[in-house]
Amino acid sequence: MSSIFTKIINGEIPSYKIAENDHFIAFLDAMPLVKGHTLVVPKKEVDLIFDLESEEYKNLWEFAQQVAKKVKNAVPCIRVGVAVVGLEVPHAHIHLIPLTKVEDMNFRNERLKLTDEEYKEIQNSIINS
Amino acid sequence: MSSIFTKIINGEIPSYKIAENDHFIAFLDAMPLVKGHTLVVPKKEVDLIFDLESEEYKNLWEFAQQVAKKVKNAVPCIRVGVAVVGLEVPHAHIHLIPLTKVEDMNFRNERLKLTDEEYKEIQNSIINS
Repeated sequence: MSSIFTKIINGEIPSYKIAENDHFIAFLDAMPLVKGHTLVVPKKEVDLIFDLESEEYKNLWEFAQQVAKKVKNAVPCIRVGVAVVGLEVPHAHIHLIPLTKVEDMNFRNERLKLTDEEYKEIQNSIINS
Repeated sequence: MSSIFTKIINGEIPSYKIAENDHFIAFLDAMPLVKGHTLVVPKKEVDLIFDLESEEYKNLWEFAQQVAKKVKNAVPCIRVGVAVVGLEVPHAHIHLIPLTKVEDMNFRNERLKLTDEEYKEIQNSIINS
């Protein structure tokens, strides 16, 4: 069965897309820890990020670098943190999390509930940054 | 003033080193969240990881991939998680954290206190894996 991210990539599940190329996609996390929390995902459905072939793995991180710079420009924060956990969705993904304090990266924190308008506003500000 | 990591790189502060080349170094975190918690650091003292020049940035992640595979082989865990936070030490560094549960990556958790023998045992098992 396709992962939830593959369904997003295929457009079967809607998302607030930030960037996309032939190999990678970035979209807003549907259960954000903070505003601007973004996921960067390889289109190839691999569980462990470190199992990606070296060139694709490095290109994924380069894509994440470009996205992170846009997030940093658009979202008020001290810096953009990075996390790869992956215990819940077996399709490698990088969390980009605008941080103002260490606690912002605690995955046990309650997730934000944003309206469609709030998501679209964040999406547009990142895309246009 | 040099960062604490530059002092480790220069050998002014001791560390349990896992791997090193001309540009990058990996050593055990002195305040580990879990056994095998490893830091990967560029020798160039840059604050934000996303400010590294593209080639060096990608090579840093490639180096981290190699180290992470050794950590995974040596340390019992479900997978090796990744975190870049950096609110405390202004010298870019990647945390590689052997995970058995999401909570293992909570930076507010109490840190382990290991003996010199325990550190050396973990260091050797990762190096030799």
